[in-house]
Amino acid sequence: MSLLVVGSVAYDAVETPFGKRERMLGGSATHFSLSASFFTDVRVVGVVGGDFGSEEMGVFERHSVDTSDLERVPAGQTFFWRGRYDFDLNTAHTLDTQLNVFADFKPKLSEASRRARMVFLGNIQPALQKEVREQVGGAELVALDTMNYWISTVPEQVVEAIRVVDVVIINDAEARQLAGEANLVKAARKILSWGPRALVVKRGEYGAAMFTKETYFAIPAYPLEAVFDPTGAGDTFAGGFMGYLSSHDLADEETMRRAIIFGLHRKNSLHSIYNSRFTIHGFITV
Amino acid sequence: MSLLVVGSVAYDAVETPFGKRERMLGGSATHFSLSASFFTDVRVVGVVGGDFGSEEMGVFERHSVDTSDLERVPAGQTFFWRGRYDFDLNTAHTLDTQLNVFADFKPKLSEASRRARMVFLGNIQPALQKEVREQVGGAELVALDTMNYWISTVPEQVVEAIRVVDVVIINDAEARQLAGEANLVKAARKILSWGPRALVVKRGEYGAAMFTKETYFAIPAYPLEAVFDPTGAGDTFAGGFMGYLSSHDLADEETMRRAIIFGLHRKNSLHSIYNSRFTIHGFITV
Repeated sequence: MSLLVVGSVAYDAVETPFGKRERMLGGSATHFSLSASFFTDVRVVGVVGGDFGSEEMGVFERHSVDTSDLERVPAGQTFFWRGRYDFDLNTAHTLDTQLNVFADFKPKLSEASRRARMVFLGNIQPALQKEVREQVGGAELVALDTMNYWISTVPEQVVEAIRVVDVVIINDAEARQLAGEANLVKAARKILSWGPRALVVKRGEYGAAMFTKETYFAIPAYPLEAVFDPTGAGDTFAGGFMGYLSSHDLADEETMRRAIIFGLHRKNSLHSIYNSRFTIHGFITV
Repeated sequence: MSLLVVGSVAYDAVETPFGKRERMLGGSATHFSLSASFFTDVRVVGVVGGDFGSEEMGVFERHSVDTSDLERVPAGQTFFWRGRYDFDLNTAHTLDTQLNVFADFKPKLSEASRRARMVFLGNIQPALQKEVREQVGGAELVALDTMNYWISTVPEQVVEAIRVVDVVIINDAEARQLAGEANLVKAARKILSWGPRALVVKRGEYGAAMFTKETYFAIPAYPLEAVFDPTGAGDTFAGGFMGYLSSHDLADEETMRRAIIFGLHRKNSLHSIYNSRFTIHGFITV
């Protein structure tokens, strides 16, 4: 019942219509593992620099997230992202990306990590995702996220990674871009033809949908009145989704539909914490 | 159980990634009344020019839509709209608007129209909407649609019209613009504070939501694989919604929730007909 996530652990500088923060704990593996930790045991594979503080490490510890495979490069700096959101908070504009120690990241999985039953390949270079997938040959369910940057620059590598996973978890726009199809049904059919048995589509404030070869499922999200910083919402959803599946050690269609609902719920619950991260503490204090 | 709609009857020229049509029957009152006619008796109040053909009139007749209050100005031309949709079909770009006979349109309601139990004020000048609303004093339920053009140019008139109706049916972006609030929950609260008891939010391919002062309801739409021309989808939804309410002569919350589902269903069903309008016939042949 252990869940493994491979992805970024980062510092984020974020500007929204509600304010500006210079240095907050972020990264896909961070958001994912904190969210999943409400359901199951999580191990995180990633890399940080010598600047990564004990306060930040404490956030993982308090959630019993296993960081044995979180590599530390003392001479390097942690991955850094700077972004800005406009009026509607829907689109992240990247202002700066400093890969730092992440540039040479080669995921090293311990024996325990290789035995994970469920694995989430967070948004990293797709060839690395494929490499990690090959190290967890016995996993029952492997899911993958990606983003427009990889789809634009190395589309064939993204497809190759998708060929070896069970579930793809991306947003509407990414699904359309990936398939080169404006129509979402056609896009889903194309992506599923590459091999995965399910495509989970994140729709931001609208909720989420799931396509399999034979079925379609969609659920709206409950609307939030206070959102100050949407960074990490997608990974938080994925963490709730995979955490729920892992805690049940099941991935049949019915359980996956329920997992989507729990993923949306976790996303909404964590927003209030992220709001306080943004407005008060400057980092996650859950 | 009669339903009245006031709105435009028009010719549309539409260009989408799938082709181009120079002259199709369109207009808010047209889409609304055809959709509602599957549920109830509909009367349409509007105006057309001398160029309005018998073939187009035949479309209303075949659906038993009462056109006694559809005024004809023999010396004038029918309202004309030219628009274009891009890749994702989500945004209509207006290329040309010729108001023609619609410029001097003063809705004249017959005695029978004034007795309508339910009324839909389609997207016309908001001061006219208010005027019509005053002519149907005994109506049990009056709903209103509007658009970004009126919200930008005469916002206070839009608010004045909203003050005298029961239900507002608009899309996400219009709700945000109208309330000057990026957050939809806050926007809904503000709009409801002006008087209506429900705000129905159209969300295109994502479905629809309804806010009342105490409740929230949302439902995803079933995704369509073939959409060639989205023109009129919002009015088709509103026609299904109001048609269902009218056929039950009820507008309690539960019936309204069901009506939203029927509205989405009608929108989807009519798309296939609209596709054939677009690809084969050049006008609606339902």
